[in-house]
Amino acid sequence: MKVAGKAFRTIRLADDGWAVEVIDQSRLPHAFELQRLETLEDAVRAIQTMVVRGAPLVGMTAAYGMCLAARACASARALTAARERLLRTRPTAVNLRWALDQMVSVLEPLPDDARAGAAYRRAAALCDEDVSICSAIGDHGRILIERGARPGGGPVRVLTHCNAGWLAAVDWGTALAPIYKAHDAGIAVHVWVDETRPRNQGAALTAWELAQHGVPHTLVVDSASGHLMQRGLVDLCLVGADRVTAAGDVCNKIGTYLKALAARECGIPFYAAAPSPSIDFTMDDWRDIPIEERHGDEVRRVAGRADDGRVIAVLVAPPDSPVANPAFDVTPARLVTGLVTERGTTDASAAGLGRLYPDRSR
Amino acid sequence: MKVAGKAFRTIRLADDGWAVEVIDQSRLPHAFELQRLETLEDAVRAIQTMVVRGAPLVGMTAAYGMCLAARACASARALTAARERLLRTRPTAVNLRWALDQMVSVLEPLPDDARAGAAYRRAAALCDEDVSICSAIGDHGRILIERGARPGGGPVRVLTHCNAGWLAAVDWGTALAPIYKAHDAGIAVHVWVDETRPRNQGAALTAWELAQHGVPHTLVVDSASGHLMQRGLVDLCLVGADRVTAAGDVCNKIGTYLKALAARECGIPFYAAAPSPSIDFTMDDWRDIPIEERHGDEVRRVAGRADDGRVIAVLVAPPDSPVANPAFDVTPARLVTGLVTERGTTDASAAGLGRLYPDRSR
Repeated sequence: MKVAGKAFRTIRLADDGWAVEVIDQSRLPHAFELQRLETLEDAVRAIQTMVVRGAPLVGMTAAYGMCLAARACASARALTAARERLLRTRPTAVNLRWALDQMVSVLEPLPDDARAGAAYRRAAALCDEDVSICSAIGDHGRILIERGARPGGGPVRVLTHCNAGWLAAVDWGTALAPIYKAHDAGIAVHVWVDETRPRNQGAALTAWELAQHGVPHTLVVDSASGHLMQRGLVDLCLVGADRVTAAGDVCNKIGTYLKALAARECGIPFYAAAPSPSIDFTMDDWRDIPIEERHGDEVRRVAGRADDGRVIAVLVAPPDSPVANPAFDVTPARLVTGLVTERGTTDASAAGLGRLYPDRSR
Repeated sequence: MKVAGKAFRTIRLADDGWAVEVIDQSRLPHAFELQRLETLEDAVRAIQTMVVRGAPLVGMTAAYGMCLAARACASARALTAARERLLRTRPTAVNLRWALDQMVSVLEPLPDDARAGAAYRRAAALCDEDVSICSAIGDHGRILIERGARPGGGPVRVLTHCNAGWLAAVDWGTALAPIYKAHDAGIAVHVWVDETRPRNQGAALTAWELAQHGVPHTLVVDSASGHLMQRGLVDLCLVGADRVTAAGDVCNKIGTYLKALAARECGIPFYAAAPSPSIDFTMDDWRDIPIEERHGDEVRRVAGRADDGRVIAVLVAPPDSPVANPAFDVTPARLVTGLVTERGTTDASAAGLGRLYPDRSR
């Protein structure tokens, strides 16, 4: 997608052909800066500190982390250690494991001296594949937006949570891809953007990328979504997914479950966009999904731009307040109207996923 | 309640016997400061800028605003203008109108020169009455907490939203009064504190006042409440109310509706604490409640303490992001397990309210 009119991907190789450049998402929307990753540890830190985030992009960054590791030392032992190091960065999203498995399956059979080159080729292919997947999700999901059009006219009003836009992937995004496709096709869309505490990915990233692309939107606090749906101001909910179980349960950013409850109560369709690398066909029970617990300072402190231009964190609670900070929650499949994948839209159920992915479901 | 061991009320007369002192809640939890109100405009500004907030306390501040107005000029015309000025400050909570009506009904029949003295006496009586009401709510609500005790032991885990503590009233609070009463009686209670964006009254006020009183609690983002309930970590939801309709619908801080939906889904009792001045016996349909729309900068910017000690606001979104900022939502009566009032706990229904308030219901 475009930033100030210029096409970008969230991750790419530097001009030197080996270092990795990512958009530093911890600086958005205040500054647009690239960060250069040269080592495995750079990649680990970028994921842990959320310089990069979003299930697909975390997977791609991990893939390139394997490239940087292989460039330093391509022994089986070093690569196993690199895989373990990267896998531990974020426990909830399954794309991370998927991307690492993709890399390992290519590198393992090769002699050491062939591994680094093969790693870069595979990582680049995974990124291209992610773009294709997200574009296909956009095409399938666009139909849902067209269906959401009201007889009286006016834009189709879509509510989304967190950032599942192009910044969360390599390009297009997952939940926002249908919105971009619809907007580009001339369909009037308006997006309700949840700010998404504690890290404010909605306020900082979704609002920013929609504005860059010219898509009309309105920012609200996370708590406002029920009120908006109750008052008939939402036609469709469309969110991303960090992990979908084989049964169609959707694990996504904390707060997604509350949107789904309000959508059901108010008779509003609730869809999750999930590329197949986000679907964990090995997991049947959503209670088995590890829910990442992040640091309490993410809740006690809020980062933003001060009037003097510096990006700083301010304390919003007593400094010693005990905090719980689960980063994700699970929306059971029965609350999900459907899943939008690169192969089409289907019921959130084992049967629905089995029809689209007979090759992967058990 | 106590601050650093010393008993305080949120509003009181200054030592000079005529000016009004309030706790400046816009400075909490970073600084505990009193603000002196000397004129009607001081009272108006304190309410509008949320130096004072919370339905009962807004009512009491308006009552004292009438005292300050009467002290300057006690003509019928001046007092009518003062009432109108105060009434316009916050549209949603009904306590404001109730308190102003209480003042007017006392002042109207009196000669001009008797009005100021009578106003101060009536405002003081209203404050004492508010303390009695909240204390009675605490006694009735404490029974719900005792009932919430689990066979296995451990503290009763109560989830609350926003601040309906003593800072929202004159003393005790509404939703937190039962918690203080239970805690003081030796019943183990643990409180989940929603941070309550956009103004963070949970993080800034509820966490602070519970800590001052020694009540165990944990701060979470608003979006976490569904996850906590789904995982069996909440025994009881207890919130305040800005306006309860004659049918038992509860208008309260934005986001309350989402808690109620999650509570019903997870089989958790959901109660609202409502002093009778918060019950609007003239309103049957919740759609008639005016929902205050506040400034978008409350969402775009977050106030807190910087590392240098200054309390400043930082920008968390693109500076020109369009924002919607409804301050309240409505939880329909069917989602409310019961209402805790100063006369006891009852069903959230016209019949339930009629049994407790035959003198006020129509």
